[in-house]
Amino acid sequence: MTEIQVISIDGMGGDDGAQMVVAGIERYAKTDPNTRFLVFGDEVVLKPLLAATEHAKARTEIRHAAKSVAMDAKPAQAVRQGKGTSMWGAIEAVKKGEASAVVSAGNTGALMAMAKLILRTMEGIHRPALCASWPTAKGMSAVLDLGADITADAEQLAEFAIMGEAFAKAVHHKENPSIGLLNIGSEDMKGNDTLRYAASLLSNDDLTINYTGFLEGNDISFGGADVIVTDGFTGNVALKTAEGAAGLIAQLLKTYLKGSVFGMLGGMIATPALKRLKDRIDPRRVNGAVFLGLKGIVVKSHGGTDPYGYEQAIRVAVDMGSCHFAEFIEPSLAQLKLVVEATEKKNLSATEAAE
Amino acid sequence: MTEIQVISIDGMGGDDGAQMVVAGIERYAKTDPNTRFLVFGDEVVLKPLLAATEHAKARTEIRHAAKSVAMDAKPAQAVRQGKGTSMWGAIEAVKKGEASAVVSAGNTGALMAMAKLILRTMEGIHRPALCASWPTAKGMSAVLDLGADITADAEQLAEFAIMGEAFAKAVHHKENPSIGLLNIGSEDMKGNDTLRYAASLLSNDDLTINYTGFLEGNDISFGGADVIVTDGFTGNVALKTAEGAAGLIAQLLKTYLKGSVFGMLGGMIATPALKRLKDRIDPRRVNGAVFLGLKGIVVKSHGGTDPYGYEQAIRVAVDMGSCHFAEFIEPSLAQLKLVVEATEKKNLSATEAAE
Repeated sequence: MTEIQVISIDGMGGDDGAQMVVAGIERYAKTDPNTRFLVFGDEVVLKPLLAATEHAKARTEIRHAAKSVAMDAKPAQAVRQGKGTSMWGAIEAVKKGEASAVVSAGNTGALMAMAKLILRTMEGIHRPALCASWPTAKGMSAVLDLGADITADAEQLAEFAIMGEAFAKAVHHKENPSIGLLNIGSEDMKGNDTLRYAASLLSNDDLTINYTGFLEGNDISFGGADVIVTDGFTGNVALKTAEGAAGLIAQLLKTYLKGSVFGMLGGMIATPALKRLKDRIDPRRVNGAVFLGLKGIVVKSHGGTDPYGYEQAIRVAVDMGSCHFAEFIEPSLAQLKLVVEATEKKNLSATEAAE
Repeated sequence: MTEIQVISIDGMGGDDGAQMVVAGIERYAKTDPNTRFLVFGDEVVLKPLLAATEHAKARTEIRHAAKSVAMDAKPAQAVRQGKGTSMWGAIEAVKKGEASAVVSAGNTGALMAMAKLILRTMEGIHRPALCASWPTAKGMSAVLDLGADITADAEQLAEFAIMGEAFAKAVHHKENPSIGLLNIGSEDMKGNDTLRYAASLLSNDDLTINYTGFLEGNDISFGGADVIVTDGFTGNVALKTAEGAAGLIAQLLKTYLKGSVFGMLGGMIATPALKRLKDRIDPRRVNGAVFLGLKGIVVKSHGGTDPYGYEQAIRVAVDMGSCHFAEFIEPSLAQLKLVVEATEKKNLSATEAAE
């Protein structure tokens, strides 16, 4: 990959603002000489930060934006007052074709609303979805939707499957990712009508994706499928609940090891092993959720991440930005359209025959 | 509590069948002389097992049941062919007033369907819900519905809150349990109409429960509320996803500690600390989900549990069986009914005024 790629960056987003963002760019720039950056934000703040970097400064252009979106702004308000903000500028750079993807650690709701307005939804996609990596026993899986919307009908779930497949190929470098639908049982009759209809679309032979059936919550962390498809409400609850459970265990482990002399001693001796565990489930390692389905790649970094986490979000943007997402999913979307039409026609004839 | 209580037991349920069940009764019987048991199942199998116990045999009566429900039977089929099974007999003992609660480690779907048919839903409850304990940073929380049904409307969610409060008082011995509604954000405007309407019912001053607002997935494991209310689809996914994440971390911890000499040595020295963690998140400790909202208490033990886990399920049955559940929730249900009526009337006048 010697193609030069440009990533646009919302320089003012995140809890620690420009400092964390520029340090993240520097970390990434050190590993990849073929990516350039357009950083939007207050140049008075950004200039000295960039000047102090070793690798980033030569490959980064600052675009001054006087305003920034508050982390607690309501999405609708942020959009109305969005012009002139670093977030708006960074998204617009993708719209103009100056950058292949945008990264922001700013206000999630504002980013999604602004990106939807500026970039618009892709042809063949009803609704965008938020997709991220989930550490599993087998490596990584992709899970979507994580909360771009709170509901999804069967056709939208099938579109999520197609977009998630592209994510798994581009970001996780998997050749033929398996796709599962999250449900409360693995038997065919489980769940609601939407899930059963989505399953029938995804298992249709005319749609050439590797759909493997329903899976349950506990299957996610054990790598039951490379791509897990669900609606945004369920996906958001599942992700946060898993984070909570993992956080509690990490906290208890620390407390118990520190709670006794033998615990402390054993913990010290086993430090490298415990560090491997910590690294493996490090939330920074999977930082970078992609807002898929817009005419442009939008990556949301966690607002509270650090330069290492921000570097991972940039990596996701570079992988997605170079995968030619739109052309990539086009054939599957065309197949899906035919499958949906054929199914609806069949259902209609069945209804007419019954009448 | 010197009141003598009788618990009826499905002696043939669970992956290991009667042997595990009787060993579980023996464990429980050792700790509580005031509980008696009616065990339903094949007396040829049960008699020698019971005869070999020390504490259980004197306080247990065997009721012969020639048939048992297969673990993989479809619920509808299990109900049709249910008469004469150990599960049917055990549930019927509650219906007849011979026992205050029933415990089964058998087929979940069959148990719910059979219990619904035999015991019927309580006055004032639209739909029963499955409720269980969830280990948190602060101790235990109650979560419901875990999958008795896949949807719930606002009024049903409010009923779940009232039933969950009773569970938290009886089983977790909490005086004034806080109640939260699971959502994808804690702000008032988050989620769907059902959740917002449920929140308005639960926060009405005329309903005297300790409702504290929306909470997110990550709040569950950190003890954000004593009772977490959600629909059965979301609750089932959340519980299983958390179990999966916890299971993965436990597996990785084991693998990494065993993967190096220092890891093994440190792990050995820290054994007591690691054992405290293991005990704390031991799924057997929270075994025993209650199917709430029927005219009788039905406790579902995990099918794959062991005697220690089964002992916990019996403990839940004893706590719930002695809490006078129906009388306990009656005042709150009456309050809820008035709140719902007043709200509907208000909404109706608002609609008429607008027309």
